[in-house]
Amino acid sequence: MANDSQIRKYWVLSVSIKVAVLSPISWRTPPRHYGPWESVVSLLTEELVRMGLDVTLFATGDSQTGGKLVAVCPRPYSEDPAVNPKVAECLHIAEVFERSADFDLIHNHFDFLPLTYSGLVATPVLTTIHGFSSPSIVPVYEKYNGRSHYVAISEADKSPELDYIATVHHGIDITQFPFTEADGDYLLFFGRIHPDKGVHEAIQVAQRVGIKLLIAGIIQDHDYFHTRVEPYLDGETAEYVGAVGPAERAAVLGRARALLHLISFDEPFGLSMVESLACGTPVIAFGRGSIPEIVKHGETGYIVANIEQAIEAVAEIRLLDRAACRADAEQRFSHTRMASDYFRVYREILNLERHDEE
Amino acid sequence: MANDSQIRKYWVLSVSIKVAVLSPISWRTPPRHYGPWESVVSLLTEELVRMGLDVTLFATGDSQTGGKLVAVCPRPYSEDPAVNPKVAECLHIAEVFERSADFDLIHNHFDFLPLTYSGLVATPVLTTIHGFSSPSIVPVYEKYNGRSHYVAISEADKSPELDYIATVHHGIDITQFPFTEADGDYLLFFGRIHPDKGVHEAIQVAQRVGIKLLIAGIIQDHDYFHTRVEPYLDGETAEYVGAVGPAERAAVLGRARALLHLISFDEPFGLSMVESLACGTPVIAFGRGSIPEIVKHGETGYIVANIEQAIEAVAEIRLLDRAACRADAEQRFSHTRMASDYFRVYREILNLERHDEE
Repeated sequence: MANDSQIRKYWVLSVSIKVAVLSPISWRTPPRHYGPWESVVSLLTEELVRMGLDVTLFATGDSQTGGKLVAVCPRPYSEDPAVNPKVAECLHIAEVFERSADFDLIHNHFDFLPLTYSGLVATPVLTTIHGFSSPSIVPVYEKYNGRSHYVAISEADKSPELDYIATVHHGIDITQFPFTEADGDYLLFFGRIHPDKGVHEAIQVAQRVGIKLLIAGIIQDHDYFHTRVEPYLDGETAEYVGAVGPAERAAVLGRARALLHLISFDEPFGLSMVESLACGTPVIAFGRGSIPEIVKHGETGYIVANIEQAIEAVAEIRLLDRAACRADAEQRFSHTRMASDYFRVYREILNLERHDEE
Repeated sequence: MANDSQIRKYWVLSVSIKVAVLSPISWRTPPRHYGPWESVVSLLTEELVRMGLDVTLFATGDSQTGGKLVAVCPRPYSEDPAVNPKVAECLHIAEVFERSADFDLIHNHFDFLPLTYSGLVATPVLTTIHGFSSPSIVPVYEKYNGRSHYVAISEADKSPELDYIATVHHGIDITQFPFTEADGDYLLFFGRIHPDKGVHEAIQVAQRVGIKLLIAGIIQDHDYFHTRVEPYLDGETAEYVGAVGPAERAAVLGRARALLHLISFDEPFGLSMVESLACGTPVIAFGRGSIPEIVKHGETGYIVANIEQAIEAVAEIRLLDRAACRADAEQRFSHTRMASDYFRVYREILNLERHDEE
């Protein structure tokens, strides 16, 4: 057990910690439009800066931060075809490790590749695992398990082979998602247009209940869009409003009667659900992946097993209190909560490492 | 100027040097069939072992060496679709750097990615640049220029932005390519079936001179094969014999009247030309890339500018002395010459590094 003076000592040491945050370079940090990993990194970084930590963000050259910015890749590779992604990413990763002596901690948001550099430096590395793109990447995490530190973004996304120092749910900037008391006359799909995300399932529900579905998001799978979505875009059953930028996002989310999130994969964390709740809009979702950790059944939405149950849930959605959805998002999914969770993890790692040195 | 006792000191130090050789893992080292980088690595490694160096080969688990083998990837990713190449390659590279303290020198044959780990270890790294797959990879070499050591595989392949410690031409195991005194009744194309390699140009020459063209090699560009090669495979003009394995290679090369190497790109180094010369078969080639460094015009072949000149060269090819081709390959392109060149480079690097430490 740590005594009071020890706790004070760690606290003082911790608030002055120098942390390097390694962001992806697929998009700007924060992203202009799409870019969920970069968005989380930006919210965390700016809150850590506000809390007084000495933060250096490693991101694309056009990124924006109140901390220090280090960039070797001037523009995001998803926005600039002249950038060779493989070249840009290894130079980007090498940069943070070559400067590792300047930092107390490296916080990696760049998937598995940086782990393979982590054994060559003394600075502890914390990796937020934003999801496993494939089971084939798990061996890298297994190799560094116990030598490096991992954070899961949901209990559901934990791999049984790995040890995690904590689970930290993502947070959003609640102020960007104002509460809307009265609901509107449409159901909403909000996310990538991809079979995983259940756009077609949402259309089926909308058809059956006779309430229009608004579809917002980037088209990731064009075949799927043309065959399973486009035929229903008659303006009555469904309407596609494209990718909705930060400015209109809250309005589209807040005026919906419910968000339909009928996914067919184990989503590591569903940011759109949290954004919806913040606006007061309850969620109807299949109970896969992180959903049972996000949606409180019968309180902030309904977790359903199939299309029939989703239809019943729409009929009952107005029984839920939109203010309760808002309150839950404020309490559990703000970026300030996320940053303070990570701060606690940083302190724990520095404490552990200090202990190792003794 | 080093005095005799200094030279002796470095020599003694050098023969006992511990070198890690980092091979690609696309194919086995040595490759079963195709795999030019892995082939060069194997020839070098085995000769260094024979010379008495303490050599550790980092390669696929099924590789063969008289030195020590370290493998994290059991099978080549080009032969096993279950291997995730990106995962396998970063674990493979990390392994050699995590063990860097065990070695006096790391000799990298794995392109640019290992360079981004090189700044994190004290052990000097020598990289043989086996060719630039694209100008977009040059920035990695530029970043580590002056901090790491580069070998070019030909003068032609040198990038003006980079400093090289040496140019070391590849060598082959001459004993695998016995001399054939009498030529045969066919012309030969030997290499990947790809527009870069000039298969169609070789067919045009064969058609015009009325001598059959034998085509040997893996089909890399199937469209090109179907449209520009297959229509001429009538058994008279041209015949495709598939990829020729190590056992039949010398027979196919040695019985040709000439090798046609009418490439349309700046090939970093043409191994097939050297193999052909070793068998006594002269080369008719366009003067691009490494060709002027390999073919001695009017002595071991003809360097030509166009199809017309190639046709004239075929008419004159019997004026050349096949024994002279063999002798030149023995003298300039043996793997023992290659290994002794690299040994000289290793000594120079260790000498430089020792000097830096003083």
